[in-house]
Amino acid sequence: METIKIIIAGPRGRMGREAVQLVKNTEHFELVRVLDHKYGGQLLSELDGFTGIDVPIYSDIDECFNESGADVLIDLTVPEVGYLHTKKALEYHIRPVVGTTGFTEEQLAEIKTLTKQQGKGCIIAPNFAIGAILMMKFSQMAAKYMQDVEIIELHHDRKLDAPSGTAVKTAQMIADVREQKIQGHPNEKETIPGARGANYDGMHIHSVRLPGLIAHQQVLFGADGQTLTIRHDSYNRASFMSGVKMSVEAIMKIDTLVYGLENIID
Amino acid sequence: METIKIIIAGPRGRMGREAVQLVKNTEHFELVRVLDHKYGGQLLSELDGFTGIDVPIYSDIDECFNESGADVLIDLTVPEVGYLHTKKALEYHIRPVVGTTGFTEEQLAEIKTLTKQQGKGCIIAPNFAIGAILMMKFSQMAAKYMQDVEIIELHHDRKLDAPSGTAVKTAQMIADVREQKIQGHPNEKETIPGARGANYDGMHIHSVRLPGLIAHQQVLFGADGQTLTIRHDSYNRASFMSGVKMSVEAIMKIDTLVYGLENIID
Amino acid sequence: METIKIIIAGPRGRMGREAVQLVKNTEHFELVRVLDHKYGGQLLSELDGFTGIDVPIYSDIDECFNESGADVLIDLTVPEVGYLHTKKALEYHIRPVVGTTGFTEEQLAEIKTLTKQQGKGCIIAPNFAIGAILMMKFSQMAAKYMQDVEIIELHHDRKLDAPSGTAVKTAQMIADVREQKIQGHPNEKETIPGARGANYDGMHIHSVRLPGLIAHQQVLFGADGQTLTIRHDSYNRASFMSGVKMSVEAIMKIDTLVYGLENIID
Amino acid sequence: METIKIIIAGPRGRMGREAVQLVKNTEHFELVRVLDHKYGGQLLSELDGFTGIDVPIYSDIDECFNESGADVLIDLTVPEVGYLHTKKALEYHIRPVVGTTGFTEEQLAEIKTLTKQQGKGCIIAPNFAIGAILMMKFSQMAAKYMQDVEIIELHHDRKLDAPSGTAVKTAQMIADVREQKIQGHPNEKETIPGARGANYDGMHIHSVRLPGLIAHQQVLFGADGQTLTIRHDSYNRASFMSGVKMSVEAIMKIDTLVYGLENIID
Repeated sequence: METIKIIIAGPRGRMGREAVQLVKNTEHFELVRVLDHKYGGQLLSELDGFTGIDVPIYSDIDECFNESGADVLIDLTVPEVGYLHTKKALEYHIRPVVGTTGFTEEQLAEIKTLTKQQGKGCIIAPNFAIGAILMMKFSQMAAKYMQDVEIIELHHDRKLDAPSGTAVKTAQMIADVREQKIQGHPNEKETIPGARGANYDGMHIHSVRLPGLIAHQQVLFGADGQTLTIRHDSYNRASFMSGVKMSVEAIMKIDTLVYGLENIID
Repeated sequence: METIKIIIAGPRGRMGREAVQLVKNTEHFELVRVLDHKYGGQLLSELDGFTGIDVPIYSDIDECFNESGADVLIDLTVPEVGYLHTKKALEYHIRPVVGTTGFTEEQLAEIKTLTKQQGKGCIIAPNFAIGAILMMKFSQMAAKYMQDVEIIELHHDRKLDAPSGTAVKTAQMIADVREQKIQGHPNEKETIPGARGANYDGMHIHSVRLPGLIAHQQVLFGADGQTLTIRHDSYNRASFMSGVKMSVEAIMKIDTLVYGLENIID
Repeated sequence: METIKIIIAGPRGRMGREAVQLVKNTEHFELVRVLDHKYGGQLLSELDGFTGIDVPIYSDIDECFNESGADVLIDLTVPEVGYLHTKKALEYHIRPVVGTTGFTEEQLAEIKTLTKQQGKGCIIAPNFAIGAILMMKFSQMAAKYMQDVEIIELHHDRKLDAPSGTAVKTAQMIADVREQKIQGHPNEKETIPGARGANYDGMHIHSVRLPGLIAHQQVLFGADGQTLTIRHDSYNRASFMSGVKMSVEAIMKIDTLVYGLENIID
Repeated sequence: METIKIIIAGPRGRMGREAVQLVKNTEHFELVRVLDHKYGGQLLSELDGFTGIDVPIYSDIDECFNESGADVLIDLTVPEVGYLHTKKALEYHIRPVVGTTGFTEEQLAEIKTLTKQQGKGCIIAPNFAIGAILMMKFSQMAAKYMQDVEIIELHHDRKLDAPSGTAVKTAQMIADVREQKIQGHPNEKETIPGARGANYDGMHIHSVRLPGLIAHQQVLFGADGQTLTIRHDSYNRASFMSGVKMSVEAIMKIDTLVYGLENIID
């Protein structure tokens, strides 16, 4: 496989550190520069936790991107900064892979135009956990053939909102394709209110909260004589890195804007 | 093992038929007579579905129990009749194993007195599915050590009430022993009502209803860094027979009234 | 939806009976004739278990298919006969939906040629359980993104062979697309032989056999910090009917041979 | 609840640090001293990661235990040292709670004698994860009523040995109580060797190894028409602390040697 040359923006954040390790540990990936608003001019190896990674740090965007030879920018900063990085990267013909949920519709439209002008793709991903993406994608596909579905999401008991964002996103993706259906028995009744969970377009969503749990979701489909279950368990932040890796590999063959990893899965 | 001689009351019902098969297929069980309000004087083998089972049918209780040599009565009839059978069996020093939820407090008290007078035990079981009994028993035990618990019960979508009787019974058994606790984050909020399920004494119960499902329940306990799950899946009526078998074996060593199989598990 | 006119071959078999019920209970399906080597000239309603289904039985293929107005043949007979039915149906411009694993390569090639000549499609399905098809399809898709996978299949303890045919088929479908990989630690060792299961092309397959179980399979994918599980539970024969229904609907828009329902899922 | 005064031996180890936090965060627990072969004479708060915990460090055992007023010693050091600590603690009438698998039969016998002499109990626990203990305990109990059982244990793919120690311990505990049984069909055959897993006294054990997994085990029991599943998921080291807490509370009422937390669960 041909080596892909990479710049990481935000290398000192929690996700950034994981990304540095990912690039370091992937044979056909090469980290050429990092972009950080601090420590410009130093080497990454001079900072805590980056032993042996002799890559120059830049604090100026143009200097960082100019003559870098980079193919891909992995941006793991905050939305406002990430937006500027993304646009600038495209101008330098560097393909951006951006982890964020924070871009506005206008910003996305502008980036889309830019990808067309430059002939270089861009991936923006609200969620890099490839297992979660597959769970949502498969659930949507299954719903075309098995209309009856309930979602159980399970999280630690410090989580404030129920249902989880991923559960609602999954329900939405299912609702987009399935024949609308009010599930359960028409005369069913709750002897204790809430037993049948939250109702989203006729689907029921159940939120379990317990100490010990991390982030889990299962989507159950039922039909005569059978059930199909699709479950994702997320144990820690490392779960995002396989999605980053996949995106870096995919972006080399893409020349438009892709929003959401579900759109690069076939 | 010494052979246990058995009378079955209600051999033609759905449970009764399973019980006849159970006794037939268990080496140390012997079916000596059956009690049925119809067909008295005939042989069971003369009826549909009992080929080869040459056991006399009695329609009169006294005749059936008298000089039968029976050790145990398995009663799978309806509550009113079952109550009369139970008392009469004890009078004949036959130990009753009765599957019913329908006896009143007064009837139970009367049977208890009778067991003491006769020195012969009696088992009355609302649920013979040994796996369900174990699930409830273990859940109660676990709740002493892991206070945070949620219950998910899953049934076919023709079921009308939610939560299921077994789920409520389980929650009750847990509430009897655990330190009272309101679970989940104190500030948690449902963005769609019902997401967090039914609240039973601070525990949350979730009811899933889907075609294809039969009768399933899982009890989840959480604590720092770990979860414990106890799950029972019931696929069909045969699930009751292991509980009947266990009861018949247990009753031979019991000389009082036992209500609920959880009380003969140690 | 336009009504689809259907002939069922083998209406008295276990699958055939389910299919008759399916057609009867589906609004836009209409059963016009049945093909049975016995009872030609009678009405289906004259036979046991078909009350009210006044559909003529034919024992001669040509008579049955000729001027029947049928759109689709559902064939649930045995391979040798099914093969003849399939060819003949295509000659009469009736689209066959056939449940069998028994056709030879030559027979399949011949049927394929015939579908082209007649411009009418044919679906041959070794497995009609739509949930099982989805499980296999999704497992294959997931394996492109998560290379590490193990399969656990669970069946009743009367099953003789391990692993199950579905497990091997799943492993094969995965092996077709994933980068070849020997899983597990290179130095792992079994302190009791067999612990790590069967090895299929570097994947491990585990076969659980217990009384009570019916037919279940779960496919587990692992990657850094996350796992994805796809599970199918089959409880009874009714599970096949959703696949038959889907096939009947799909075949109306297909003009070639489709082998395996995974190929009509998108 | 009366306050329990505690000494921790090995406060700087990974388990020790968790234990210090546990004691600090438990209202009726009070940390009075710590025992550490280094830093004697300093305060724990002077070391990294113990901000605000002004507890004196002792490096001499006698000085540490003498006039400490301590009720309980939590020992999380290595076996050789732990053994000395345990004996000395009992001599000072301090009850030891020790996390180790490393004591010899002779050492255990000696400690047992000492507990009797001193009239103070001692708990030695190879595993403090209360959920794992409950899983094993319940599995043993269930095996008396449901003889058919298989164990699936699932761990990360850096684990070398299969099956896991916990799986073998579970199988052993089950074998101690259940009627011996060779499970599965007598004529079953593996078409790929290993499919049916490891055989331990007629029970089958399956070991799954995947990246992403941490430490999980499920024990499945089957009987006619039903299954019972007991599952433990361990996500991180914090899982041990609930067992330490339970032990500290239990030891106050125990005056003998208890080996294994399963023996203080009722």
